[in-house]
Amino acid sequence: MADQQPPASERVTVKRFPARGAYDRATIHAILDEGLICHVGFTAADSQPFVIPTTYARDGDRLYVHGAQASRMLGALRGGIPVCVTVTMHDGLVLARSAFNHSMNYRSVVILGTATEISDPAEKLAALKKISDHVIPRRWDEVRRPTREEVERTMVLAVPIMEASAKIRRGGPVDDDEDYALPVWAGQIPLKVEVQAPIADARLDPAIKPPRYVTEYKRPRSD
Amino acid sequence: MADQQPPASERVTVKRFPARGAYDRATIHAILDEGLICHVGFTAADSQPFVIPTTYARDGDRLYVHGAQASRMLGALRGGIPVCVTVTMHDGLVLARSAFNHSMNYRSVVILGTATEISDPAEKLAALKKISDHVIPRRWDEVRRPTREEVERTMVLAVPIMEASAKIRRGGPVDDDEDYALPVWAGQIPLKVEVQAPIADARLDPAIKPPRYVTEYKRPRSD
Repeated sequence: MADQQPPASERVTVKRFPARGAYDRATIHAILDEGLICHVGFTAADSQPFVIPTTYARDGDRLYVHGAQASRMLGALRGGIPVCVTVTMHDGLVLARSAFNHSMNYRSVVILGTATEISDPAEKLAALKKISDHVIPRRWDEVRRPTREEVERTMVLAVPIMEASAKIRRGGPVDDDEDYALPVWAGQIPLKVEVQAPIADARLDPAIKPPRYVTEYKRPRSD
Repeated sequence: MADQQPPASERVTVKRFPARGAYDRATIHAILDEGLICHVGFTAADSQPFVIPTTYARDGDRLYVHGAQASRMLGALRGGIPVCVTVTMHDGLVLARSAFNHSMNYRSVVILGTATEISDPAEKLAALKKISDHVIPRRWDEVRRPTREEVERTMVLAVPIMEASAKIRRGGPVDDDEDYALPVWAGQIPLKVEVQAPIADARLDPAIKPPRYVTEYKRPRSD
């Protein structure tokens, strides 16, 4: 039923392999909530596109994008220009019996919209907490909060999650009928983001042990 | 010594945290050779940017980008328009004692350039083999090769790796001096792409066992 939701626009309609497209909120939100990094695309004044990785968080139907990494974004995006935010989880390699039918398993979301800068300090602080909570739940409550000057030095953009689509490929290869007889192994090599053991900072007091939200960190959070 | 290489242009110069920037071929090539997916940014006719994940391979100082996923790219890119290709490896979360100094460990490459379509069938076939060899070495030699029609139905773009930069963050948090006394755990949570056990296709003859390049698959290849 979920996949009966129509696309919000022609521009976000999945054209190649349309069966892989999904347009319902639940599917789009689940991918956004699991990812840690997005790729933000914008076009600079000389019409050169840029694609910059950064962190983000979803707040209802808005995406907050952390702009500190990208001084280049700052000038370009303050004016409220069109962006594309893409979140991709790469779930595996798909090995078919023909070169042509090889594929990838993945879950991705593409959001088209206009990014606006969050300038109100209280709103910006709330957005930064959302980003922190998204990346590492409970961290914000333990650390030193940003000073007013630190908030000023950080840029947060808001992008509405209105014109968006998900694209998902799962499962094994789909071969041409006549290729199934070929004596070649076929299947999937799944890939997963593995969270490794935390490494304490060299200057950390050894009496301070990592909290459970660090030792039990995982994605997706609801595993 | 490697990091003494100057940037190819102002546009690819790393401005925020300039010490994280690198412009030498070896650093840029190593990141491109380890990654599996790139994000291609281009600007559509209505000035809307798009960012699309796809596979790629490096061939010397050229990047081949697989265009099959993106029918939308096809029309936009055939004419030879400016693109940005970004490859990001997300290596971990960096937990500082202040919210502001939290960071990510990552290795990324940004390439600016003009994408041109490879139209010569033999050249396109060679580029497709490069992409296959990049993603799964030795696979190409075992599977059914593309027919002439399959080659025609696939789009491969070439982007020169000339105007490019790498950006790398490694290691633990860097806190403000006065924050080191705070009684809060600080350090890194490393992330790694884990290759899981291969899953045979449901229609595979059980007598066909996975080859070593599948059972021993890993990234980076030279581990």
